[in-house]
Amino acid sequence: MSTYMEEVSTRAERARAASRSLSYASTETKNLALRLIAESLVSEADTILEANQTDYASAQQSGMNPAMLDRLMLDISRIKGMAGDVLQVMSLPDPIGEMIEMHTLPNGLLAGKKRVPLGVIASIYESRPNVTIDLSSLCIKSGNALVLRGGKEAYNSNKALAEIVARSCQKAGLPEGTVEFIHSTERELVNYLLKMNHLIDMVIPRGGSGLINMVRENSTIPVVAGGVGVCHAYVDKAANIDDAVNIVFNAKTQRPTVCNALDTVIVHQDIAASYLPKLAAVLADAGVELRCDTKSLSIIKDTGCKCQQASNEDWGKEFLALVIAIKTVENIDEALRHIAYYGSGHSEAIISEDYSAVMRFLDEVDASCVFANASTRFNDGAQLGLGAELGISTQKMHARGPLGLKEITSYKWIVFGHGHIRP
Amino acid sequence: MSTYMEEVSTRAERARAASRSLSYASTETKNLALRLIAESLVSEADTILEANQTDYASAQQSGMNPAMLDRLMLDISRIKGMAGDVLQVMSLPDPIGEMIEMHTLPNGLLAGKKRVPLGVIASIYESRPNVTIDLSSLCIKSGNALVLRGGKEAYNSNKALAEIVARSCQKAGLPEGTVEFIHSTERELVNYLLKMNHLIDMVIPRGGSGLINMVRENSTIPVVAGGVGVCHAYVDKAANIDDAVNIVFNAKTQRPTVCNALDTVIVHQDIAASYLPKLAAVLADAGVELRCDTKSLSIIKDTGCKCQQASNEDWGKEFLALVIAIKTVENIDEALRHIAYYGSGHSEAIISEDYSAVMRFLDEVDASCVFANASTRFNDGAQLGLGAELGISTQKMHARGPLGLKEITSYKWIVFGHGHIRP
Repeated sequence: MSTYMEEVSTRAERARAASRSLSYASTETKNLALRLIAESLVSEADTILEANQTDYASAQQSGMNPAMLDRLMLDISRIKGMAGDVLQVMSLPDPIGEMIEMHTLPNGLLAGKKRVPLGVIASIYESRPNVTIDLSSLCIKSGNALVLRGGKEAYNSNKALAEIVARSCQKAGLPEGTVEFIHSTERELVNYLLKMNHLIDMVIPRGGSGLINMVRENSTIPVVAGGVGVCHAYVDKAANIDDAVNIVFNAKTQRPTVCNALDTVIVHQDIAASYLPKLAAVLADAGVELRCDTKSLSIIKDTGCKCQQASNEDWGKEFLALVIAIKTVENIDEALRHIAYYGSGHSEAIISEDYSAVMRFLDEVDASCVFANASTRFNDGAQLGLGAELGISTQKMHARGPLGLKEITSYKWIVFGHGHIRP
Repeated sequence: MSTYMEEVSTRAERARAASRSLSYASTETKNLALRLIAESLVSEADTILEANQTDYASAQQSGMNPAMLDRLMLDISRIKGMAGDVLQVMSLPDPIGEMIEMHTLPNGLLAGKKRVPLGVIASIYESRPNVTIDLSSLCIKSGNALVLRGGKEAYNSNKALAEIVARSCQKAGLPEGTVEFIHSTERELVNYLLKMNHLIDMVIPRGGSGLINMVRENSTIPVVAGGVGVCHAYVDKAANIDDAVNIVFNAKTQRPTVCNALDTVIVHQDIAASYLPKLAAVLADAGVELRCDTKSLSIIKDTGCKCQQASNEDWGKEFLALVIAIKTVENIDEALRHIAYYGSGHSEAIISEDYSAVMRFLDEVDASCVFANASTRFNDGAQLGLGAELGISTQKMHARGPLGLKEITSYKWIVFGHGHIRP
């Protein structure tokens, strides 16, 4: 057994052991650990920044690109931001211990489901050191033990942060092993970790789609990860045109690089002539590239806005950039068929003042979040009131849509009897 | 592409297409289909029995063992029982469409989760023809499309039953493809089916542990299956002795071949001398084999009851027979450690009148169902008020414990806005 295997096994076993008493740790104890983490982040900022400068210097030397360098970089305001996020998680209600569907059965048994942690969560993540704190605080609050494997580029920063977490957990009285940070840096250890079904209950990859796909393909442990978001907005013939312009503009441009940003707008032919010129004008102004089907192209062309014919590949594509595909349809049925065929089940919106069209869209579209007269950008844990999120799930098993604290829990049945036997 | 591949693909695609409108079929339509199935089972009993006799005759000829022959066999009372079960599912509340956690956000967005079907469920099952009807009714009620692959031995029976289901669905107005029964009998088709992630959302194997393990190992689709049940009862020093005798006797003998039957009784040393002789007497009377640790052996021996020294393999073993392991412990801590180490997370019970011991046991034991002063045999969908069940899950993801209608659903977020854009 190589050294990294030994380390990974030891840490995963320690996390498994910790998960037992962590599962019924009091909210008070868990909140104390979170408060200590937030305080230490600020009081020990110098140590963190020093470690981060080491990482940053070698990343610069090795020629890391500016976007990744920016993700790696910490400064005092980012550290204070991390501390603030920890306090925000601290302020959320504890999901653990909630009793669900408790009821007395005809024979007098009192039975219900009690919310419990999943157990041990592992995360493989890339160069953002804040993920170390982010996941630690969500797991501590939800009573899950955590095994962390951060990117090599951020090794010193992550180590400094993980030490603060471990020390705070210990001071608060949480079990040793609550958060375990893997020190070995061998690439092969990831594959080894991803096969530890007997010790780890869930894997959360955080990073680019390359990392996420690698984890999905190699893990024998259930994986929960954000999915591809191919998002549509259907502008019905009964749409309020101002709303339709604002919503599509917001969903496309407010933050184009994320999964809930809009990719395709589908326009009812009866409203296309009055709507598309207004939409094209604001989008073109914001530098958005317009890729249109024949009908929309002929309308937009006349306005003088820059636009081009869409290719087949533009339908069902997640652009993650200032590009939008535009299609006109004969009716809502054609729009629903397009979304069913090309959508990725992430975020879909209808803009319409027609009650029946809205209700039909909400019923028939199968996606993690379906919107009436609102931007797809609201498919987000904080925006939907979950407080914090680990990502957005497009799968149907276990949890769908934004993953908050509750979504990294399970439940157990609790049954109170008085000598009950089964007849 | 071989013939069976073509058949499996066609049926899975048809089920996928059906799942779309099935997901918002009305409760009325689904209940009508269920009522037609129940009626047709009785009115077409002769056809079913004829098909079943063909299966039975060839199974007998091929030398099938009596237990399996009994599972295969249908008669008019079993058919009426199946019809009754369908009506029972019909009478359950429809889980689909339920709104969960609906709330208005500070910005006026009205958001909540709407319960929706998972989509397409596939089932691989063995010789019991009633599974065809059982799963069809649960899937129809929960709006899931279903692909069935039954055992070869029951081919004619399953075909006759599946025809009744298909005809009833059609008459009621459910989409074609709601329930698809695979006619090909090649063994290899199972492996092909288990890789159809893009068309099937969940696999439910029904049968022996050989079948279940095969499905678990080969499926790339999430599997939900009943697990091994290594079940313990801890008889605390503060137990009511009569309750402890009755509960352990019931949990062991009421139906010893099922997963929630008791395997090991753990007895506090302070109560062992007064409790074990009474327990041993009733168990021995019922023909239960007693495998004891040294302390319990010395107590039970003196009573003249037949008993033997337990081997190491008896701890953590699922007996599925009239065999019980008996262990004495110094205190509740030792009992909890034993259960944490040897339990399979299925059903665990404490028998005690000590409030704090009971509450600690319920908190600390990690299992799908934890009982205070009640038999482990209550870990069952019907007994816990779910109406019907598909099995008992020992996994923590998605659903734990008895799987009722709600447990084969997912949800989608529904958001009502009024031109909302994200700031």
